[in-house]
Amino acid sequence: MKIYDVENFPNPLRIRIALAEKNATTEVEFIAVDLLNGEHRTEAFLAKNPLAGVPVLELDDGTFISECTAITEYIDAAFTGPSLMGISAKERAVINMMQKRAESMVLDAVATYFHHATDGLGPELETYQNIAWGEKQGEKARTNLNYFNDILAKSRFVAGDNFSIADITLYAGLVFAGFANIALPSHLTHLLAWQKAVAARPSVAGL
Amino acid sequence: MKIYDVENFPNPLRIRIALAEKNATTEVEFIAVDLLNGEHRTEAFLAKNPLAGVPVLELDDGTFISECTAITEYIDAAFTGPSLMGISAKERAVINMMQKRAESMVLDAVATYFHHATDGLGPELETYQNIAWGEKQGEKARTNLNYFNDILAKSRFVAGDNFSIADITLYAGLVFAGFANIALPSHLTHLLAWQKAVAARPSVAGL
Repeated sequence: MKIYDVENFPNPLRIRIALAEKNATTEVEFIAVDLLNGEHRTEAFLAKNPLAGVPVLELDDGTFISECTAITEYIDAAFTGPSLMGISAKERAVINMMQKRAESMVLDAVATYFHHATDGLGPELETYQNIAWGEKQGEKARTNLNYFNDILAKSRFVAGDNFSIADITLYAGLVFAGFANIALPSHLTHLLAWQKAVAARPSVAGL
Repeated sequence: MKIYDVENFPNPLRIRIALAEKNATTEVEFIAVDLLNGEHRTEAFLAKNPLAGVPVLELDDGTFISECTAITEYIDAAFTGPSLMGISAKERAVINMMQKRAESMVLDAVATYFHHATDGLGPELETYQNIAWGEKQGEKARTNLNYFNDILAKSRFVAGDNFSIADITLYAGLVFAGFANIALPSHLTHLLAWQKAVAARPSVAGL
């Protein structure tokens, strides 16, 4: 298995955490994509992922899998260790829902703010920007942090008692928020305590 | 099990097709949400889904599941019949990826066009619009139809040989496109043939 990614970028981080949670990091060969010089927009890379995003997983049979949820689904099924996607129908549904909420309410909203309302990756890569839309998504991300603070006041993890892909997505969202200079308000004590606990997990601290 | 939805709306359609594919429509009580009069923004509905969207699944133990992928995950595991999410790790990953592509490249792009660049659901419900962003997403949806036409030139269904949630999402995206007056160009023959075949499935024709 190979993973094409950019170390320390938020979406690649999601997959590196998932692999480390499954103790499978050494099963994968990482191949750096020179995204800042536009490698993700070359014909060779678009053949791997037509949406030009990282990370991309290449299976040993040559199949390319992109989209973080899809890659995590594969990793979760292919390796032993605690489940990241849930076991029972209800658990899987709740984790799927909370992962999607962490994505749309925080991670994707922060990404849109970064790419549209700031310099983002610079003028060569940010060829279309809609500042008003970016600002709106930044506001939305800030407001939505309250929702997750409330969830984490009542629950140890984002989707219940167990660490899951929903925690990984929210954690990457907060990393991206930090990178985009969106501060976490100090009154969101439950969110901050959860963030500290996730950062201390061997899968995250060891990266 | 109960489903709160609006008949004939694109996202509710996804779940009604999934249920019909599993022969489980009669296992569910449907409860109409008066979305056009803003019922989805009442406190009672927001307690079911804080994101104010339909459909929402209520399990018999009172758990609320929103987000179409999460609801379909539940339906797929809870009822017998052909799998909509895939069985093997690789199959599940490919279906997850193609579902996400159908969502982001077509269904969500069309929805954003509809809510931002047209009158959408009217001035009372469309309280924030960004016309330029809506137009951009409409263009993106139109361009992305070519990608799915190419996929369906080589593959019977969106994610391979079997009908899956990826087909349901793309089909709902095309229904939404029709509603938003985005025409399907007649040269996309593979996409049009696939659309006709899906429309003729008992799960869709019988709705």
